Amino acid sequence: MNVDGKPMRTIWVEPDGSTVGVIDQTLLPHRFATVPLTSLDDAARAIKTMQIRGAPLIGATAAYGVCLALKADASDEALERAYAVLLATRPTAINLKWALDEMMAAVRNRPRDERLAAAYRRAKEINDEDVSINEAIGRHGLPLIEAIARQKKPGERVNVLTHCNAGWLATVDVGTATAPIYLAHDRGLPVHVFVDETRPRNQGASLTAWELGHHGVAHTLIPANTGGHLMQHGLVDIAIGGADRVTADGDVCNKSGT
Amino acid sequence: MNVDGKPMRTIWVEPDGSTVGVIDQTLLPHRFATVPLTSLDDAARAIKTMQIRGAPLIGATAAYGVCLALKADASDEALERAYAVLLATRPTAINLKWALDEMMAAVRNRPRDERLAAAYRRAKEINDEDVSINEAIGRHGLPLIEAIARQKKPGERVNVLTHCNAGWLATVDVGTATAPIYLAHDRGLPVHVFVDETRPRNQGASLTAWELGHHGVAHTLIPANTGGHLMQHGLVDIAIGGADRVTADGDVCNKSGT
Repeated sequence: MNVDGKPMRTIWVEPDGSTVGVIDQTLLPHRFATVPLTSLDDAARAIKTMQIRGAPLIGATAAYGVCLALKADASDEALERAYAVLLATRPTAINLKWALDEMMAAVRNRPRDERLAAAYRRAKEINDEDVSINEAIGRHGLPLIEAIARQKKPGERVNVLTHCNAGWLATVDVGTATAPIYLAHDRGLPVHVFVDETRPRNQGASLTAWELGHHGVAHTLIPANTGGHLMQHGLVDIAIGGADRVTADGDVCNKSGT
Repeated sequence: MNVDGKPMRTIWVEPDGSTVGVIDQTLLPHRFATVPLTSLDDAARAIKTMQIRGAPLIGATAAYGVCLALKADASDEALERAYAVLLATRPTAINLKWALDEMMAAVRNRPRDERLAAAYRRAKEINDEDVSINEAIGRHGLPLIEAIARQKKPGERVNVLTHCNAGWLATVDVGTATAPIYLAHDRGLPVHVFVDETRPRNQGASLTAWELGHHGVAHTLIPANTGGHLMQHGLVDIAIGGADRVTADGDVCNKSGT
């Protein structure tokens, strides 16, 4: 997505071919800065201290964390240690274990001198797959917004309510639940987003509002208490939020307030 | 109520007989400081900048604001100016207009040289009446908490949820909606209060939690989003909150989230 007009992802490999760059999300919205990750410990710390967060991005960062560990030591012992260290960083994010298992499968049965290249290849695939999945979420969700827009009079906006951050900062790019909003905006639909600030960590205020603003999407930051009031008065056309997990029965795990 | 073991009110007349002291509530919970009000402008500023807030305390402060104006100038013109200046400070607090009308009635038809003493007398009455009303709220509400306590097993607490600040800092003393909580605590009932932080101004976090802590009442500060979750899991026995207004039909005006 765009930051001040320049497209970027939340995680990338630097031109040296091994250092991994990420946006330090703990500094947003007041300061935009990137952090280089050059070791397993750097990657683990980035997840633990929430410099990067969001289940998809945690998985993507863990994948590169395995690469950084193998760069220092490509032994089985180092691989197993990297798996254990990274798995312990954030036990609730299911993408973390998935990504680590994928990396294990891609690396384990190879000779040591092939492991590093195989790891960076698989990590890149994991990252690119995340972007493709999110673009598909955008395409699938867009008709919901288009249907509302067709019922609006000229000059009226489609009002979306969202909670926490399910945008591109939580993923490698594009975002999950809010992908349809960005796609609708890019297609010229008049969307406006009510952004729950999302206490106690303010992911809505610090991340979602920042994302929307830098991409040029109209939005209003609100205390989460206000969402019910807006709905009561018919000011919300559609609510779109993320979920940590959805069970087969339709039960949803997510941030309090969702 | 008690601040570090010492009983105090939110507003008082200093020993000089004319200066009015208040707690600067904008500094809470991090710093406890009092402010002397010596003029109409001081009183108006205290209301406008929310050094004092809460409808009953706004009324009580406005009453003393009229006294401070008359101290400088006891003319009809000065009285009318004080009424207009104070009324404009916070148009939503109904106690403000009520207190100003009371002060007008007490002062207007008196000779100028009697006005100041009459004003301080009526302001003192308005302050004392507020305390009596609030003590009655406590007595009337106490049986609700006692009834819950009787159904608890030994060692179990009565869990109260509250929103914003309806405690003694919003009044002259004792508090409105939370008065039964303090009375229950003082009578030895095992009460525990979930305090909504109450965005965007954090009156729950900054004032209610501070009050409860300084009076020794067990409490847990929560984001307001969490209230629904606690209720869903049966962790709230009773919710007690303030209201700016309650209509004859039972409709309630109060802070978003109530």
